[in-house]
Parts: sequence; structure tokens; C-alpha cells
Amino acid sequence: MSRSDARPRINSITTDYRIVRENSLQLASPLSAEDKQIQSMPDASPTKWHLAHTTWAFETFLLKPHLPNYEAFNSHFEYLFNSYYNAIGEQFPRPQRGLLSRPSYLEVINYRNYVDQFMYQLLESNIEPLMPLIRLMINHEQQHQELIMTDIKHALSINPLYPSYTEFEQPEYPISSLEWTTFSAGIYQVGHNNEPFYFDNEGPQHQVYLEPFQLANRLVTSGEYIEFIENGGYQAPSFWLSEAWYKIQEQQIVAPLYWIKQKDRWYHFTLSGLIPVDINAPVTHINYFEANAYASSINKRLPTEQEWEIASRTVQNEATTQRPQSFHTRGYNNSGLQQMFGELWQWTSSSYNAYPGFKVSDGAVGEYNGKFMVNQYVLKGGSFVTPQGHIRPSYRNFFYPDASWQFTGIRLAESL
Amino acid sequence: MSRSDARPRINSITTDYRIVRENSLQLASPLSAEDKQIQSMPDASPTKWHLAHTTWAFETFLLKPHLPNYEAFNSHFEYLFNSYYNAIGEQFPRPQRGLLSRPSYLEVINYRNYVDQFMYQLLESNIEPLMPLIRLMINHEQQHQELIMTDIKHALSINPLYPSYTEFEQPEYPISSLEWTTFSAGIYQVGHNNEPFYFDNEGPQHQVYLEPFQLANRLVTSGEYIEFIENGGYQAPSFWLSEAWYKIQEQQIVAPLYWIKQKDRWYHFTLSGLIPVDINAPVTHINYFEANAYASSINKRLPTEQEWEIASRTVQNEATTQRPQSFHTRGYNNSGLQQMFGELWQWTSSSYNAYPGFKVSDGAVGEYNGKFMVNQYVLKGGSFVTPQGHIRPSYRNFFYPDASWQFTGIRLAESL
Amino acid sequence: MSRSDARPRINSITTDYRIVRENSLQLASPLSAEDKQIQSMPDASPTKWHLAHTTWAFETFLLKPHLPNYEAFNSHFEYLFNSYYNAIGEQFPRPQRGLLSRPSYLEVINYRNYVDQFMYQLLESNIEPLMPLIRLMINHEQQHQELIMTDIKHALSINPLYPSYTEFEQPEYPISSLEWTTFSAGIYQVGHNNEPFYFDNEGPQHQVYLEPFQLANRLVTSGEYIEFIENGGYQAPSFWLSEAWYKIQEQQIVAPLYWIKQKDRWYHFTLSGLIPVDINAPVTHINYFEANAYASSINKRLPTEQEWEIASRTVQNEATTQRPQSFHTRGYNNSGLQQMFGELWQWTSSSYNAYPGFKVSDGAVGEYNGKFMVNQYVLKGGSFVTPQGHIRPSYRNFFYPDASWQFTGIRLAESL
Amino acid sequence: MSRSDARPRINSITTDYRIVRENSLQLASPLSAEDKQIQSMPDASPTKWHLAHTTWAFETFLLKPHLPNYEAFNSHFEYLFNSYYNAIGEQFPRPQRGLLSRPSYLEVINYRNYVDQFMYQLLESNIEPLMPLIRLMINHEQQHQELIMTDIKHALSINPLYPSYTEFEQPEYPISSLEWTTFSAGIYQVGHNNEPFYFDNEGPQHQVYLEPFQLANRLVTSGEYIEFIENGGYQAPSFWLSEAWYKIQEQQIVAPLYWIKQKDRWYHFTLSGLIPVDINAPVTHINYFEANAYASSINKRLPTEQEWEIASRTVQNEATTQRPQSFHTRGYNNSGLQQMFGELWQWTSSSYNAYPGFKVSDGAVGEYNGKFMVNQYVLKGGSFVTPQGHIRPSYRNFFYPDASWQFTGIRLAESL
Repeated sequence: MSRSDARPRINSITTDYRIVRENSLQLASPLSAEDKQIQSMPDASPTKWHLAHTTWAFETFLLKPHLPNYEAFNSHFEYLFNSYYNAIGEQFPRPQRGLLSRPSYLEVINYRNYVDQFMYQLLESNIEPLMPLIRLMINHEQQHQELIMTDIKHALSINPLYPSYTEFEQPEYPISSLEWTTFSAGIYQVGHNNEPFYFDNEGPQHQVYLEPFQLANRLVTSGEYIEFIENGGYQAPSFWLSEAWYKIQEQQIVAPLYWIKQKDRWYHFTLSGLIPVDINAPVTHINYFEANAYASSINKRLPTEQEWEIASRTVQNEATTQRPQSFHTRGYNNSGLQQMFGELWQWTSSSYNAYPGFKVSDGAVGEYNGKFMVNQYVLKGGSFVTPQGHIRPSYRNFFYPDASWQFTGIRLAESL
Repeated sequence: MSRSDARPRINSITTDYRIVRENSLQLASPLSAEDKQIQSMPDASPTKWHLAHTTWAFETFLLKPHLPNYEAFNSHFEYLFNSYYNAIGEQFPRPQRGLLSRPSYLEVINYRNYVDQFMYQLLESNIEPLMPLIRLMINHEQQHQELIMTDIKHALSINPLYPSYTEFEQPEYPISSLEWTTFSAGIYQVGHNNEPFYFDNEGPQHQVYLEPFQLANRLVTSGEYIEFIENGGYQAPSFWLSEAWYKIQEQQIVAPLYWIKQKDRWYHFTLSGLIPVDINAPVTHINYFEANAYASSINKRLPTEQEWEIASRTVQNEATTQRPQSFHTRGYNNSGLQQMFGELWQWTSSSYNAYPGFKVSDGAVGEYNGKFMVNQYVLKGGSFVTPQGHIRPSYRNFFYPDASWQFTGIRLAESL
Repeated sequence: MSRSDARPRINSITTDYRIVRENSLQLASPLSAEDKQIQSMPDASPTKWHLAHTTWAFETFLLKPHLPNYEAFNSHFEYLFNSYYNAIGEQFPRPQRGLLSRPSYLEVINYRNYVDQFMYQLLESNIEPLMPLIRLMINHEQQHQELIMTDIKHALSINPLYPSYTEFEQPEYPISSLEWTTFSAGIYQVGHNNEPFYFDNEGPQHQVYLEPFQLANRLVTSGEYIEFIENGGYQAPSFWLSEAWYKIQEQQIVAPLYWIKQKDRWYHFTLSGLIPVDINAPVTHINYFEANAYASSINKRLPTEQEWEIASRTVQNEATTQRPQSFHTRGYNNSGLQQMFGELWQWTSSSYNAYPGFKVSDGAVGEYNGKFMVNQYVLKGGSFVTPQGHIRPSYRNFFYPDASWQFTGIRLAESL
Repeated sequence: MSRSDARPRINSITTDYRIVRENSLQLASPLSAEDKQIQSMPDASPTKWHLAHTTWAFETFLLKPHLPNYEAFNSHFEYLFNSYYNAIGEQFPRPQRGLLSRPSYLEVINYRNYVDQFMYQLLESNIEPLMPLIRLMINHEQQHQELIMTDIKHALSINPLYPSYTEFEQPEYPISSLEWTTFSAGIYQVGHNNEPFYFDNEGPQHQVYLEPFQLANRLVTSGEYIEFIENGGYQAPSFWLSEAWYKIQEQQIVAPLYWIKQKDRWYHFTLSGLIPVDINAPVTHINYFEANAYASSINKRLPTEQEWEIASRTVQNEATTQRPQSFHTRGYNNSGLQQMFGELWQWTSSSYNAYPGFKVSDGAVGEYNGKFMVNQYVLKGGSFVTPQGHIRPSYRNFFYPDASWQFTGIRLAESL
């Protein structure tokens, strides 16, 4: 999976459209029709569904309202591939997406081609007023590209054959000591910087006052996390939030998702199958509860999203230029803060909520972000399967605190 | 789906093996790899799983113990495709069978071919002592052939596109008045007649005393059942068993499975998609609760399994000779009792239990029938997707009283 | 708790009414208002509810329709204390009976007194046509007397203080060797013998043909059952019905309800608190699944209800005359079959179903027995908390196969 | 329920202890032993349990570690009445608190008296170092006093008799127009002011930067909320958070908890039984989801906890002096902001989280607040059943967003 989208943003919108559409298919290419069919939990969707839903989005938000005389590819798809847009209409039940053997993968490809053909037609017309919406839909498909990877990993993990998505060379991680970078108190500005594209939830730009804090230079490693496990971390209620303790007791959780101990050694299921855990690699598939418990166990805490964002702005330029070219080799900058971008999503202690002055947009696109602003926590930085265009300080990813199937890790913070 | 197995039983065991193996593939042939992958509920299995599991059974019960030097196709399959045999070992969780995208359908075909090749080798050796086991395994695969049909129907039914398994010509049902055949009290013999093959639960043969009763000449029609619905049958607690009433209230059930009312007309989902209900056809996908409620509503009852079996012996010969050649054209005998065999499974009021003197066999095959003898009810007669070799008076099918996804109907009885 | 109702049936109906009403209160007398309030599972009801519901039954089925100008004590009680009679109207949700702190126990006593006063008025009128219904309602309250005992035992068992209902002297059980009584094949008559009172489900009388069988002379002892446990009975799937195996795995069941092992010794919670298990006493709180598994483990089986009934008729007279006078001292007859009556309810392998020719009565009383005829199994003989008038060969008690909170034991049988 | 604790804080600690202990009993006094027994949901506890648990807290945190030679009243109570302190040991399962008929209410009273006697002994010794802990335990019991009221209301609400806790005169609410008070941007200080007592979660004091906003002068009225309902508010997905929409669909919620429409008029269950809704009274038993939806429906939002706290400081003095003397007559201040304190808890949009620099205390008391800092939302202001000592700007109450059984209302805010 080469990051062909890692180039500077000088593409025409048509080129961007073409690239995003090609990339989705490329991500699906190592998978059989059967792999693309399966859904292992309500939160995760089949690959085929992602390919159809992103197509549905272009059809629904652009072609139907804006391309004269456009006729839908299949009138039932409006219902079948609507994810959660109540303003569009009812939705096929999310937990049953894996049961839609029809349309077949080939028919979904036909659907993609059909919509592409009309999208190119639309893109050649005067689309200036539609540009924000087109950019949004391109970014929407990019977000689903990441979900294709995380969801298929979960689906394949159910299979005791430990099947591989594809064979990757595993990156090598040097030993790196844990150090701290200090930030002083003051009023800071957070939120988007009027980049060419940003999501509504990244604004409005606004000011916050921060007390002094320090941030760890790197992510918590698997080796450090193994120490937590082997020292009884999962059996010590004092480290855990009450809700978390209840869950790990009830579900008998004793290690991160995908981890398994065989003959005294830790292995984890990866996109390349079951392999030994690398103790120098950052620990991943950590949920908020685990991240919080780990931090508590060593008297640290998670950063707030504001702290993370402001700290990340100090390394942003460097990170961008040293951006890894593929998701199995990753570079390191030489500044204090490493692994801020494109390594793993990093939990913050901030509940996902509206910025001051945030207003939900009218119409169906208003359902994109705002209606999820409860009970979820903000993650920052992006992972190695995050499309490059989604790597920026103001980006706000969000998941429930018990979600483990994303590529998520731990960066520690501390008040001063 | 021609009933090529409807010929007289003069085949060699090798021929019988070949036919059953071919028939399974033929049943799967109208389905895509994606169709064969999906599982819509824990009770129903994917087509691919049925094809693998039946192969697993030949490998596990015949090749491994009885073919010298046989090496398993894949050592993981012992776990993956074990249905419920604790004596063999643990089983992959039933509700997750639909998540096994690997092995692919093509690999399952390879597995079938591999096992077939060694089975032919075994069949050419001196197998006299193994004959009962081989016959059991052939009948086992035939039972799964019926499940392939009922399970894929359920899986496709979830899809709002109402996809078709294949296009069948629907049989025509003449109008037929409801009449009664009388049977007098006395001691009767029930159980198998030492046919070439029967299941252990069909014996031992034994005597029963029956009070006088009468049996309806035909199955309850869809038209009669519509009358029950439209007269408020699903809203009248007095017709329903307590447990049934609770369930239909809780799940808001107002019609049989697969039925839907559109513009004042009843439709039902079939293997050929959604079509109007034929009021002369026997009503199907009726569970025990519904069958019992319908009978109560007209002051009748369901027959016991003994009543059904003894009555059926009076029409057996005739039925066999007039056996339908395919499952979309069905003949009628001219005797009093019609539709006894090969039309729809018919609920009896008999809880599935051991016959007097029944002993569970030693070893894993002892788990075939005996361990299910609780809370299930006996069905008799076979349906239009039941392999011909399973059509006989002593055959005892069994399902839970809330099971609707088999081809099940209602025959009424009455005490005299 | 003396069995003041153990005398011969020469009472006037008024006396019988008075006795049954007094006995209920006597059973409740060791309990505080708080004890009478609690409900530990949907299947079990609070003592207070039993006292109110039995009163409701007299009011609903006798006073309201048959005593001119009768005015209900409280119009809301029709809904609050209706157990399951859909013909009367909707019912307060069963799982919430324990939340009805109002009416208080004292108000329920007032309700009882109010209804008693009018019942005596009715009983003094010409009630010949009502006699069957009055007898039914008296027997109904007696059934609830047994449930008062089983339900409060369950409720108190939740409390880690192991509270006592009252202090009983535990009966002494002599060592008794396991022997068998043989019964020959033939046609037998089963069902009620036109006793002064019987339930509708005990008829019609009818004939059955039985194959030869033998019955154990006594119930399985706790000592024998401990052997089953310690030999790994709960870990051996081959002994268990499939559904049972699934449940004991899922719920991690390793011993009967109320049993607990402390320092290598088995204790069980009783109506007198936690005491050591007596190895000579019959094992109790066994559900159908356990009874069946135990029998399988020693190559025996449970009797059918017909076998049990016919065998019991050979000891009936003797048993009646030697009937224990209280439920903590129990006599033994000297015939082959012991502990048939009034010791523990004995599971049969018979699913609870209608006898040939059984018709559900019209009206609400038709809901008394018939609507439960699915998925439950027949128990025979009565327990030491069963009112004397319910001890007879034809009596059919019934519970779900996973029910353990009744006083239930195991009698073994074998085909010959 | 007179607010005898509304006097100025000049009491000795012994007097404060006595008052809090007496007040708990006074709150329980209108209830029967049966009322005190029942538990209607896992979140709510029986009155008797609250009385025992608060006693347990004094015994566990003060008497056992600090009173020499103290012997526990009953060694089992450590387990029975531990709410959630893992550092103390395991806890009796929360959903089963209502099943503990033993100890009886009278025995709990004995327990209280026993502990009181030793507490007075402790209070007479040199307790200076223990003062913070004693104050904490007194405040702890006060918090449970509020829960006694909210929990018994919920328990009684299950009863279709609509029983009354006690008869209150309902307060009269004048018509009041909705107006706005404006606050300018700037750095503000939030958190406790070193009051004689505050909870750990109210600190550390710290600075925040706020953008300009305005706050509604009063709470949303029932009349305004009825308008929302009747205009289809519960049927309009665009007003609701995604999670909220899913819940109200699934649970078919169409009005606040305790509301019922009879003959076109809205009634609600109160501590005085079922009465008509007063359209001028503030709407209560609103959960976060409903509060958020209502605000969205009129293009407003909920305040953050910081906004609320800073605004409340402008009215604090006035409110305190005009504090209502009982919870059925409530005064109004004449300033812009009314109903800030002691009327209803007011939802904020702030997820309950640690203040910058917050550290969890060592030992069991560290479990008091910190471990609940996830997925809950902060409420401010206190309700009419909140003890006076808990009314202050920095106080942070917290509940899950779907919690409705507290006395919770809506105050609107808006960004400028």
C-alpha cells in the first residue's frame, strides 16, 4: 500500500477524486469476495460495504441533487448503503451489513464505475459552489479507507487460522528512553488554521488557557505495557475507572485486543497474521480505559486534546517532511516529540464535544460529526493506516472509551 | 434440482457416495461465493460450512480411524468444522461460522476432492464392517442438503432486495375440501421396519396403545391460515400456549415467517423471491406454537407422532410410487390421506424423546441424535426439499417449538 | 408446621376453606414484612403476593360472578394480583411483583379478611353448582402454599447471611441399599380415579401400553450424587443433554442449587440455614438436566410418567396410612418402593402434554393447566412441603427442565 | 421535611454529626419497612440500604481504623454494605440490594445506634487530624439523603397505585419570561474557594479562558417542554444525539420519565403521587439527551460547567440568604439569574473529568470521586432535595447522560 497520496496538494480536484477512488480499490485488492463480505461486529463494516457506501455518498450528496437528469444506479441502494443519515431516510440495520451477499462485489464495482463516470461529468462542469462538498466527500472516502483496514483486521482476527491480509515487512523500532517536553501556562489558540480542508468539528478556532504541563517524547512501548500486565495491572482495581474495572472483570480481559500468550511469550494478531510482540514498538489496540489505567499505574495521566494539539504544532513541519512513504516503514524526527503523527492514534482525556460557537450545518451533512458528541473521547495524530491528508494538529478523531480495534496507543502527560 | 436420487435403491455404495457428494455441489451451484459465506442466525449455517462439515464427517469418522496412513487435509479443520461432537473435541463457536472467510469456497472444494479421492480408496477395500457407518455418513450429508436449502432461504430473506436462489415454476394446488380419516383404538407397532437404513432414534420397534382418532386428509392451506390471521388469531391469547403468547407479544409477530402484507395482499419470500401467497397451497414456515394455536382456534389438535406414523403406513406404498420427480411439481395420491410425504414437515404434539429401550451408541456417533431429546417436537413426513431416502413413516425429524425456518406445515387431528 | 390437613376428608367445604386460609397465614408467620416483600427471580413470587393472589382468585372466580352485590375490596387489585389469566385482563409484570411495597402486608391481611367474610356468606348459600369451582380454588391456594415455601427459600438463599426460615429438626435417614422392582408389559389405565377432586390435566382416564421396566426402590441419595460430582460428572459432556451441557458450561454450574463446598465438605442452604449435606438423605434441588445426566452416568434412565404412576398405585394405600405428620419426620413403608409420596417431587422423562381427549375448559379457568403444555416435564409424588390433599398417583406437577428451586429428586428406572 | 440544616455553620462537629444522622431517619420516617426494602433498578438503592451504608462508612473509615478496641457490629456488614470500595474488599452485588430482607430495618436501626454511640465516643477524643475525614463522611451521608429521595421516588413509581411518599403542598410558580444575562470573554477562576468543606473533585482551583456567552435567566418550564413534545420533538432525529435517538427509538420514549398523558392532559408522578403537570414549573427528570435535544430544537445549547459556575458566582450571596426553608416552598431572587441553586440540578455540556493537577487520594477514599470520571456529565446547582451544605458554585454532581431519576432540569446558554 504505497502512499501515493503523500505528495504536495497541487492536484486538480478531478485527480484527487481519481486517486481516492483508486486507493480504495487497491486496499481491497488483497481480499477475496468472501473476505470482503464478512462483518465481525456491529461497529465494523464489511469491505464491500465501505466500497459501496462511499460511492453512495457521492451519489446521494452530489449526483442526485446537482447533476441534472442523473438516475440512480439502483433505487434500493439509497436504503442499503445509508450509514446513519436520518435526513436521507431509514437505514438498513448496521449489525446486518455482513448479510448482504447481494449486491455482489462485482456489482458494487459496477456501481462504483457508474458513479465515477457521472462524477467525472460533474467535475468537468462549473463546480465552484460544490467544492466544499466534493472535498468533504473525498475526505469521507479517505476516512473509510482507514476503516477498511481496521475492520478487516478485526474480521480476520476471529478466524483461528490467523489469516493474513497481506505480508508486510515489520518496521524496526530502536530503543528510546522516555523523556519529557515541558510547556508553559498561557492562552493558546486551538482549532483549524483555515487549511484547504478541515472538518466542521475542528472549528471554530478559539482560545484556551492551559496550566503548565509536560508531554512524553514518545508513545508507551509494548515492553512497558507487558510490564504493566505482568505486574498485575489488570488485577489492580485502583488503576482503573470504575466502569472499566467492571468491564474487564465481566469480560475477563487480561491483555490488549489481539494479544495472546503462547509458551510464556506474547504474540499479537496483525495484518500479516500472528507474530511475536516487538517490545520496542509502541503498544497498540489500547482502549481509553486501558490507556487511562496504564497512566494511573505510573502516576501519570493522558493529555487533554488541547495540550496535545498545542504541543504537536511545535513538530508539525518536521513531521510532514519526514513523512513515511508506506505504512510499514516509518521515520523519526530528531526533535523532542516523536511519533506524534502517523504512528498511532493517541487517546486524550477530552470528551468529544463541540468547540465554543460550533453550529451543526443544515441538512444531512450536519449529521457528519455533531451528532456523535457524547460519550466518546478525542484521539489525535493519526495512525500508519491514516491517509496523509488527515494528518494535522487540529484533526479530531473520536471513539468510545471501550473501542480497541483502531490503531490506538498511549502518550503520557503530567501537570506541573 | 432434479431428484436423481429418486430411483430404486440398487446402487452400489460407491455410487450412492458419488451421488450424494454431487448433489450437495449441485444445490450450492446457483449461489455465489458471497452467498455461500453468510450466516443469518446461530441456528442456520453457511452453505460453505455445510459443504465442509459433511466432508469433515467422512474424514473424521471414516478416513482417520479406518484408512491406514491417511493424513488430514488441514489439521485445523478438525476444530473448524466440528458441529457438536464433544467426543471429537472443542468446536468453533456456532454463531461465528459465517465469519470464516478462510478457507475460501475454492479451498473447500479442494477439501471435498481430497476427501473424495481417499473415500473412493476406502470404498474399494473390504468395508463390510464399516457399511452402517458409511450409510450413516451418507444420510448425514443428505440431511445437510435439506439444511442448505432452508438456511440459504433464511439468509437471503434478510436482504431487502428479496434475492432469488433460483427461479422455480410454482406448483399448482387444486382446491381440496377438508375431510377426515378415522382410525380405531388398539395396539399398534411403531418404529423402523428394519429398512436398509434408519437412524437410531427410529427404534427400538415397540408397541403402543392408541385411543381412536381421526386425521385430516390434507394440510391446512394458506387461505385457511389467512382467515385465522384476519379473524384476529394472533391477538387472541386463548388460542396460544402461554410461552407462545409471551413470544408473539414480545416480538410483535402477526403472521408466519417470510410473510408480508403489501396493499392488502399477502406475499411471502420464497427461494424464487417475493411472490403472492397461493391460498390453495399448504401454509408453511409455521412453528409449533402457531400450529398448535391454529388447531386450538378450530377446536382441533395436532396428531401425536404415533398417530401420524400409523396413519401414514396406510398410504406409504402409493405415495412412494407417485413420488414427485422434482420439488416444484408434486403429485397427489387418490386415497383419503394426501400430502403425507414430501410436501411439508408436519408438526406432531409429541416431544422428541427416547423410544422404550433406546440406548445411546458408544463414541462420537452416539451424539448424533440422543443428546437432543429435550424441549424439541417431532415432525413427520418430509418436505419438498427432503432427499427421497429420508421419506418414510418411522423417520423422526425434530425442532424447537419456535423454529419457523424449516418447511413446516399443519395437519390436524381429533380424538373420537 | 403441623399437617393439620392430613386428616380424612370428612370436612365440610366451609371447614376446608377455613383450614386452607389459616394454613397460608401460618406458613407466612415466621417471616417479617420485609421477608414477605422480596422476589429473587421472575419465576418465584413474594410471600405477600401469594397471600394476595390466592385471595384474588376467590374474589375473581367466586365472589364477583356469584355473590350478588359484592363490591371489590380494591378495584386495582384485579390487575395487581392476576397471575396469568388473560381472560380476566392484563397482568402486572411478573418480574416486578417484589416492587409492590403497597399494599402492605397488613393491607393484604385486611384484603384476606374482607374476602373471607364474603366467602363465608357465599359458602352458606346454595353452592352445589359452584362446588367444583370452590374445590378448585381451595386446591389452588394449597398449590401456592407449596410455592410460598420454595419461593422464600430461594429468596433467602441470595442473602450471604444464610438466614433461616425457621429452625427444623432434620430428619434422620437410614442407609438403604438400591434395589429394583419389576413391572411387566401390558395395557394399563392411567389418569384420575374420579377422586373427590382432581385437576383437569389428570384426565381423561385412558389406557396405555407399557413395555416391561423396573423402578428403583428409593430416591438417589446425596452421597451417590456427591460421587457423581467428585467423579467429574459435571465435566463429562457425554452424560448431558446438549442443551444442558451448554447451560452448565455457560453458567459454570458444578453442583446442585444451594450447595456449597467449604473446607472439603459439602453444605447446602436449607429452610433452617446452611447445614452439612446428609449423605443418606435423598439429593434434592436437582433439575431435569441433572437428573437425566445422573441417570445416564450409570446407564439408567428416568421413568415415564405412566411407569411412575402405575408403579405408585401398588404402594398407594400403604403410603396414605403411614403419611408423615409433619414435614421434618417422614416414615417409610416396608414394601419394595419407598419415598414415592411426600418426600420429593420426582422427575419423569415425560414432556407435559395433554392426555388423549383432553379439552381445555371454557373461560378463565381453562387457563389453569392447559396453556403450559409445552417444554415442561412431569413430576410425580409430591414433596415434604406439598399439602396432603395433593398426594396421589395421578397428580401431575410440571416444571421447566432447568428449574431447580422446587424440592425435586431422582428416581431411576430401566427398560427390561 | 424541614431544612433544619439550613442554619449558619457554627455547629460543633458533634452537633453536625447528630443532625445528619437524625435527618436520614427523618427522611425514612414516612416509609414502611416494605417501602424501605425495595429496589427498582440497579442504579437506585433501597432506603434501608442507604441507612446501613452510611453507617458502614463511619464504621469502616473512622471507627475501625481510629477507635481503639472497636469491634464491628456484625462482621458480615463489611461485605453487605460496601458500595464500591475495592480497597475495602468485595461488594455484595448492587442489583440485589433489594433482596436483603435481613438485616431488618429494626436491626439496621440497632446498627446505627451502635455506631452512633461509638462515634460520639470518638468525637469526644482528640480528632483534629481526623476532621477532614469526618467532614467527608458527614457530607457522604448527606449525599445519600438526596439519593434516598430520588431512589424511593423511582421505586414507588413502579407501583400502578401511584403511592405517595408524603403529601406536600405544591409550590406555586409565577409566569416568568425568558431573558438572557451576558458574560464577557476572559480568564476566570474556577474550583472551590477553600470553603470549610469541599470534595476533591472541586479542585485544584485553576484558571480557564471563556469565550463570551449568555445564560438564560431561568430554567425551561414544563409548558415550554410540552410544546417541544407536541411539536414532534421526540420524532425529529435532527434534534437528538445519535446515541440518544437510538435509545428513544428502541425504548419508545415520548415524554420525560414519570410523565403520562391522560385524556389529553399531562400528569406526572411525584413524591405526592400522580398530579397534573404545572406548566409554569421548571421541567424536571430530564436526562442529558433530552436537555441537549431541547436546546438544539431552539438553536440554543447547554452551558459548560465553567460557564455555569462563573455565572452562578454573581448570584451566590443573594441565593444563600433567600434560601428556601423547606423543599415545597422556594423563593426567587430578584437578580437576572434565578433558580440557580436548590431548585433542580442543571445539566452542563461538560463531561465529568479531572481538573488540571487533580490527584486521586491514597487509600479507599480515593475511590470516592476520581474513578467515575468517564462518560458522565456534570450537573450544577442542587435540587430542592439537596442538603443545604451541598449548595455552592464549585459543587460538581455527575450522572450518565441517560439518567432521568434525579431532579434534573434545563438551563439554556448561547455563544456570542
